[in-house]
Amino acid sequence: MNVFELPKCLPQEEVFEPLLSGQDILIERIISAGQASPPGFWYDQDKDEWVVLLQGQAKIGWEDGRSKELAAGDWVFIPAHERHRVEWTSRETPCIWLAVHGKLKPA
Amino acid sequence: MNVFELPKCLPQEEVFEPLLSGQDILIERIISAGQASPPGFWYDQDKDEWVVLLQGQAKIGWEDGRSKELAAGDWVFIPAHERHRVEWTSRETPCIWLAVHGKLKPA
Repeated sequence: MNVFELPKCLPQEEVFEPLLSGQDILIERIISAGQASPPGFWYDQDKDEWVVLLQGQAKIGWEDGRSKELAAGDWVFIPAHERHRVEWTSRETPCIWLAVHGKLKPA
Repeated sequence: MNVFELPKCLPQEEVFEPLLSGQDILIERIISAGQASPPGFWYDQDKDEWVVLLQGQAKIGWEDGRSKELAAGDWVFIPAHERHRVEWTSRETPCIWLAVHGKLKPA
């Protein structure tokens, strides 16, 4: 599978595709095209996440009020349990994310 | 740092840039522009590697005779101590690699 290849028809929901799933690690591709986290919803993940946006534009917001707009190539590190949400994602240019989930915190 | 942004001047050598360095994990960007592994050289790494080519073309070869040409978006998983080398990398379109090194083997 090529990370830049999109299915001809994107489903209504975001697409989560594991590329490599190890004992303590998950590398996945995520495709978003206009979706956002539901109002009031926060991701609260047990694992750290490093995520890069490979295509599209998007905005991530944190519970503490921070937010970051991402263009293709921008990445963020989200420590475990740092509550965050996806504010918006571009629809015409679908977002392709590459996310690494695991124990990633600096030593 | 944006993974698609290249320095105006690329040095003669490949560029290795850690993006996230954890206890048991390293996420790094590698830029290659025409370089290849020296003749007879094999990478023999203590950690597993998952690597995706985000831009350019390249070819990886393994000691057992396998090889794979990569286009932008293609990725490979290289278990620890699987001896391999970079046969060639595109120069006009510099290669941008994103590599995850760690204990990645499927459970």
